[in-house]
Amino acid sequence: MMKGLENIFKPKSVAVIGASTQKGTIGREILHNIIVNEFNGKVFPVNPKASVIHSIKCYSTILDVPDMVDMAIIAVPREIVPMVAEQCGQKGVKGLVVISAGFKEVGGKGIELEDQLVGIVRKYEMRMIGPNCFGIVNTHPEYSLNCTFGKTRALTGRVGFISQSGALGEAIMIHARELGLGFSMVASIGNKADVSANDVLEFLKDDPDTDIILLYLENFGNPRHFTKIAREISRSKPIVAVKSGRTRQGAAAASSHTGALAELDVGVDALFDQCGVIRVSSIEELFDVGAALSNQPMPKGNKVAIVSNAGGPALLATDALVSLGMELPQYTGETKAKLKKALTGQGEVHNPLDLVAGAGGEAFKKALSVVKNDKNFDSIFTICVPPVTINQMDVANSILAGIEGCKKTVLTCFMGAGEGSAAVEYLKSRNVPVYIFPEAVAKTLSLIDGYRRWLERPRGQFKTFRVDKKQVQERIDRALKKGEKAVVSQDALDILEAYGIPTTKCAVAYAEKEAVTAAEKIGYPVVLKINTPQILHKTEFGGVVVDLRTAKEVRDSFQGLRKKIPAIKKGEKFSVVVQEMVTGGIETVIGMTTDPSFGPLIMFGLGGIYVEILKDVTFRINPLTDNNVDEMMKSLKSYPLLTGFRGSEPVEMDTLKESLLRLSQLVSDFDQISEIDINPFIACSAKGKSKAVDARFILRES
Amino acid sequence: MMKGLENIFKPKSVAVIGASTQKGTIGREILHNIIVNEFNGKVFPVNPKASVIHSIKCYSTILDVPDMVDMAIIAVPREIVPMVAEQCGQKGVKGLVVISAGFKEVGGKGIELEDQLVGIVRKYEMRMIGPNCFGIVNTHPEYSLNCTFGKTRALTGRVGFISQSGALGEAIMIHARELGLGFSMVASIGNKADVSANDVLEFLKDDPDTDIILLYLENFGNPRHFTKIAREISRSKPIVAVKSGRTRQGAAAASSHTGALAELDVGVDALFDQCGVIRVSSIEELFDVGAALSNQPMPKGNKVAIVSNAGGPALLATDALVSLGMELPQYTGETKAKLKKALTGQGEVHNPLDLVAGAGGEAFKKALSVVKNDKNFDSIFTICVPPVTINQMDVANSILAGIEGCKKTVLTCFMGAGEGSAAVEYLKSRNVPVYIFPEAVAKTLSLIDGYRRWLERPRGQFKTFRVDKKQVQERIDRALKKGEKAVVSQDALDILEAYGIPTTKCAVAYAEKEAVTAAEKIGYPVVLKINTPQILHKTEFGGVVVDLRTAKEVRDSFQGLRKKIPAIKKGEKFSVVVQEMVTGGIETVIGMTTDPSFGPLIMFGLGGIYVEILKDVTFRINPLTDNNVDEMMKSLKSYPLLTGFRGSEPVEMDTLKESLLRLSQLVSDFDQISEIDINPFIACSAKGKSKAVDARFILRES
Repeated sequence: MMKGLENIFKPKSVAVIGASTQKGTIGREILHNIIVNEFNGKVFPVNPKASVIHSIKCYSTILDVPDMVDMAIIAVPREIVPMVAEQCGQKGVKGLVVISAGFKEVGGKGIELEDQLVGIVRKYEMRMIGPNCFGIVNTHPEYSLNCTFGKTRALTGRVGFISQSGALGEAIMIHARELGLGFSMVASIGNKADVSANDVLEFLKDDPDTDIILLYLENFGNPRHFTKIAREISRSKPIVAVKSGRTRQGAAAASSHTGALAELDVGVDALFDQCGVIRVSSIEELFDVGAALSNQPMPKGNKVAIVSNAGGPALLATDALVSLGMELPQYTGETKAKLKKALTGQGEVHNPLDLVAGAGGEAFKKALSVVKNDKNFDSIFTICVPPVTINQMDVANSILAGIEGCKKTVLTCFMGAGEGSAAVEYLKSRNVPVYIFPEAVAKTLSLIDGYRRWLERPRGQFKTFRVDKKQVQERIDRALKKGEKAVVSQDALDILEAYGIPTTKCAVAYAEKEAVTAAEKIGYPVVLKINTPQILHKTEFGGVVVDLRTAKEVRDSFQGLRKKIPAIKKGEKFSVVVQEMVTGGIETVIGMTTDPSFGPLIMFGLGGIYVEILKDVTFRINPLTDNNVDEMMKSLKSYPLLTGFRGSEPVEMDTLKESLLRLSQLVSDFDQISEIDINPFIACSAKGKSKAVDARFILRES
Repeated sequence: MMKGLENIFKPKSVAVIGASTQKGTIGREILHNIIVNEFNGKVFPVNPKASVIHSIKCYSTILDVPDMVDMAIIAVPREIVPMVAEQCGQKGVKGLVVISAGFKEVGGKGIELEDQLVGIVRKYEMRMIGPNCFGIVNTHPEYSLNCTFGKTRALTGRVGFISQSGALGEAIMIHARELGLGFSMVASIGNKADVSANDVLEFLKDDPDTDIILLYLENFGNPRHFTKIAREISRSKPIVAVKSGRTRQGAAAASSHTGALAELDVGVDALFDQCGVIRVSSIEELFDVGAALSNQPMPKGNKVAIVSNAGGPALLATDALVSLGMELPQYTGETKAKLKKALTGQGEVHNPLDLVAGAGGEAFKKALSVVKNDKNFDSIFTICVPPVTINQMDVANSILAGIEGCKKTVLTCFMGAGEGSAAVEYLKSRNVPVYIFPEAVAKTLSLIDGYRRWLERPRGQFKTFRVDKKQVQERIDRALKKGEKAVVSQDALDILEAYGIPTTKCAVAYAEKEAVTAAEKIGYPVVLKINTPQILHKTEFGGVVVDLRTAKEVRDSFQGLRKKIPAIKKGEKFSVVVQEMVTGGIETVIGMTTDPSFGPLIMFGLGGIYVEILKDVTFRINPLTDNNVDEMMKSLKSYPLLTGFRGSEPVEMDTLKESLLRLSQLVSDFDQISEIDINPFIACSAKGKSKAVDARFILRES
């Protein structure tokens, strides 16, 4: 898959097609950047209207270049992009970076041009980044390649950055530079017409110079492939991602209950959670986390020590940390004693440590050299606010001296240090990330802690159960043949039963007498429901009668329902479902909906108000591992109801969990099912009692 | 109350006691700041060791100063602070600002010194800010007074700032300056030994040069007074506040259910909500909101138009806005047509407007001059990311031209504009706040929108009901006399009844026969409960038997309970409560807990799992208005259960609401009650059926 990307990121010779002498044009800036960054290879400007650009001989077309060219950057008007790409192919160029815009992103003619371009790329077996992108960067000294049109030079570092937005490119380069964040590689992938984010991810996975990957995404091309790669990479290199477009409209209207509950974003959350991707909610957080991960070791836990020269900001930091689930334990006795000795005149010592007013550098050094050895902490968070009596550079030096040899994560906050403070720059240059506000440090620590917890989770197992696939296929085929989009009632329960998901006993009855016979076979009490796919919300409609205890009650209810439902579909005979009544237990809802980009999502939640009003539901991308199922349950606010609340018996969990895994298998096996509601699935405390009471399958129109 | 503050903030002559020539000392910096800020009055350095400081004649003591002195700033070692304060009193100085630290904040000797200092201040009827503070600022040209020891000069503006943290002072001044935020007055109030935040608030309330008030608070001295002032000020001047210490431990262990549910911070949230204070969660947000409010008009609603030169950041902005409850409606037809005409080559026009790639200044001007007149929007959010082909100053100019005469709120985001960008500085100087990240703009708009909604809320009414106070006093006195800290069972219900809160009929029975007689009087079915304050969780203990339908059942249950409860307190006779059984309805919980600083908080929530597991409860500070009660109900996630869910009857709300108001009156009337649980109060749909079933009062130990 990733074959050929080395020609783009690690070329020995580069052509800039559309190079220009005119300042402020993209073609000029790209060439300029390549040269001033001292690209460690040959560069050939191409432009029919010039013979020399930026002191370098210029060629009319790439075909005129005498040497081999590994990669060509194209920044010409969109209409001639296909032509120059064709020439690149003829020339034997292996990689293209197409900066030019006006393709699929503008629609119309742009789509046509992009298709044409992709055809040429495929024909010559080239690889292409873009079109409509900001360019690429490889800071490794063996290449030192910066072919972007930005004004900001990337610092060298160990962060790989993939951005889907070209427009954000320059803003991001500036921000990273201000933070002192260095890149190994940068790829602005634009329209992803050939090379996708997944391709670059795979490339960075094996890149020995990349330790951390930052992602800015607007959509997923192939989420299943992303899942596979990201899950693998996350084990060794953290991936931090912003995914925008969270609230965009556009998902097709859902016809199931589960579908209606799936907000547009649950798929992304589920996906990132399942692959260990650190999801951040802004570019700012992306780089805050990137700066911490690329400069400091991963913390081993969530326990933070704060060392501050002022109480106010330490309080703000404590608030932020605790509200994000981090802990601020107290010192060991040894630390306490040592601190008291080291900090004369300090009075009380406790975490957060508020150094006496006017504490200068020396106090930071003394405090940190004790705290860094306290086993109660995993990370250290220092805060300095600048009273006039303190020399910030002293503080910076003293922090560095204090944490020497420290194995814990150290992040610092210099509130109001002022722009371009020398102390701040100095700390950054010594791999101690500096933040302006304590809340940013707290957020960063908590996001990284989430990743640590993911790494520590046991790896889940996929399970395969013996099931009756044929029986399910028959029910689906029968429905499709009848032109029905839904499978409901007995047929739906039969499908579950075929996959080993327990269901209530039931039978369809077309007449009073049949209903009574069925009830007697099932055993009283029973429930009667109207049996038609046309009525979705049977309860609201009054189409369900519960707790029938005698033959007479069954007969009366049958007649009652018949009267209520005058408008049966033509040719359909009135019928009811007679069903075993389950008493006790807790109503749960199990479902599936299909996300346009992520495919099937499995849902679980508690029934009734928990789903309807509190929306206390959870989604995971299919297929599920046993651990996914565990996490789904535990992530619900209403989870304690399942484990026994106020002396009630806990639910027998094995059947419930296995039912979710069996549903996952069913969903994997049948692509024709687009949505499922099992509502309710009643979870009981006694083994063998939990059962699906009602189910509904929506089939894909194909 | 605020009398005398004009001597501090608006003095004609100032003495600096502890003035010094030594650079880097506080005494030098304060004098320096007063002089370089060109204080519009006389300044007298005081220091026995110098005859001239900073070219100004220096006096040994304030008593040597020949002129009248309105205000003295004291920056001397803590031990001699009382002495110099005494001299100030003798001199007739009216206001003190004590910078010196080492007082109550360090404990021990410091407490003594502070008490001594306050005594002197009171004796001479002076007013004092501090000790342990950063100083004060009044930028009004009539005074132009900056007596802080910071290096950063405050810009002139219309924001009043009150900070409890001295250490944050300088950090905040720097940050404000970077944002271009101008102050009318700044007060660092330190230990608040005399002048409190409330005093300064009252002073700023009437200050014609202050339009907005920013607060940094660590605790409330007198929250009831704060409530009164803040509620009044918020009607005309927005107050924005950070309150830190949200997660600090320290509240006394609660002995009621309600108390246990009240997290430390609910009082602050309730207080701010009740007074219309905009609560922000960081210093960063404090100033983000301050910059918007002080430069732009208040938006009239929550509808935002985004105009961006790039899709990526517009997406990020949309995500952030929508997730915060803001709306992005579409253009009117007229706007659409005009935009299409104005922006040639733009293609589709919709909100958010993504100007074609490379859009320069001109496009912003054209777009904004149309969008600013669209009635569908209340605020405009422009985003500019810097591709190399765009001149940022052009964009800034063009934004200004485009929004000329615009009545809507305009906030801008220049992502990655780089430090000290001229365009950014220019926009700020023209009252258009500029933010680096789109998320900050979204948060700012949503916080301001919350304030707008508060302003639009109807003002609530306090209600007074005719009640039987005497009866309640009797019950309380009786319990206290017996040395009981709790009032439970019948006595507790009697208290509610006396205040017109409906309760179930019940009676205490000491023998089987009495129980049966009571049950017959009340009417079957009844509930039997053990009657002793010693057992708190009667249900878990098995001390409650429900749904007794016959005399025999009552007798059996009486015996059963007696066997269960062997350990009755000495001298106490075994008894049960026989109670009317309420069927149907929804369980709610009404309660009260006393916050150490806010006093009584009233709680409301739905019973059972909603309270126990989902913690879906809401608090307000007593006393409650009718609107407070409305808001409490509506703020619950489980609110829809009260208004009818899945075809169930809505609850009759008047009785429920009135019960809360009556409880509020009870709490106001009886200071001896420290906690209340009414659990459950069953809310029914039929009028006259809702009733308190059980209640428990905890009395204050006095």
